[in-house]
Amino acid sequence: MKTFLMISTVAIVGSLFGSAASAANPAVAAAPNGITLPEGYKDWRVTSVAHRTDNNTMRAIVGNDKAIEAARKGQTNPWPDGAILGKLVWKADTDPNWAPAIVPGKFVHAEFMLKDAKKHEATGGWGYARWLGEEQKPYGKDASFAQECVACHTPVKGNDYVFTRPAKLP
Amino acid sequence: MKTFLMISTVAIVGSLFGSAASAANPAVAAAPNGITLPEGYKDWRVTSVAHRTDNNTMRAIVGNDKAIEAARKGQTNPWPDGAILGKLVWKADTDPNWAPAIVPGKFVHAEFMLKDAKKHEATGGWGYARWLGEEQKPYGKDASFAQECVACHTPVKGNDYVFTRPAKLP
Repeated sequence: MKTFLMISTVAIVGSLFGSAASAANPAVAAAPNGITLPEGYKDWRVTSVAHRTDNNTMRAIVGNDKAIEAARKGQTNPWPDGAILGKLVWKADTDPNWAPAIVPGKFVHAEFMLKDAKKHEATGGWGYARWLGEEQKPYGKDASFAQECVACHTPVKGNDYVFTRPAKLP
Repeated sequence: MKTFLMISTVAIVGSLFGSAASAANPAVAAAPNGITLPEGYKDWRVTSVAHRTDNNTMRAIVGNDKAIEAARKGQTNPWPDGAILGKLVWKADTDPNWAPAIVPGKFVHAEFMLKDAKKHEATGGWGYARWLGEEQKPYGKDASFAQECVACHTPVKGNDYVFTRPAKLP
């Protein structure tokens, strides 16, 4: 009974205040730095695509509304607080019906950059997080994993740490 | 005055019934087969990406709501009437900050397949249209241009004439 009450209390507190993980997506654990999987990212609009030949992956670069609006207005250096960029990454595969076409194969991971100059000041104004595979396992053993992200993105510090250049559309 | 009246009449008839071109996007001319540029396609969700090494282009494959819902449910053989698939195509470029990454360069064209088994029976149940460049010039001299599309898509007739396989997401 004591166990039951404890579980009930946790459930009630959880539903009233929302835990870090449940607020965005209750089925997916938060990253070790506390960032939760952005809600609805699969419905975000696309701003670019990429084929990385060094690790054989195909990517769709998507953004939340704030990011897409900023991208279309060219207001990306710096990106506005609240902008989130997402990379959907698949292993590169060959189109079975068109041999010279490289297309998405197995899903690798979804990774995100969340802009908040103050909140994420320690990591260059961006919060980083990545979820691996179809099981969406958070990347990193502890919060220090983000230093790896920052190190890789530092060469594009002059572009507000972002590699992606929004693709041009009419 | 006669000219003025005629223009006014055309304008009124146009606004009441909608001309083929003005219904979707008044600034862009319709394709030679009467298909108009689908409204809001830049805001559609992405279902796959591709790198065609035979013509050096990068592609984002997007879909209207009907297409994305069908793709997520695996109901794509046949695709439902009303589904529209769009390909946003750019010349392949090298990322200036990550040499082994291939990214979008100059915009090439936007092309579409519109599913309506009855309306587009003569072209395999799909209506085809393409608009070239940032100036969005309709492709094709007359309605027969679509035969070129059908010929190219016929090898994937068993996949309802669609090359794109929706990319897997968790």
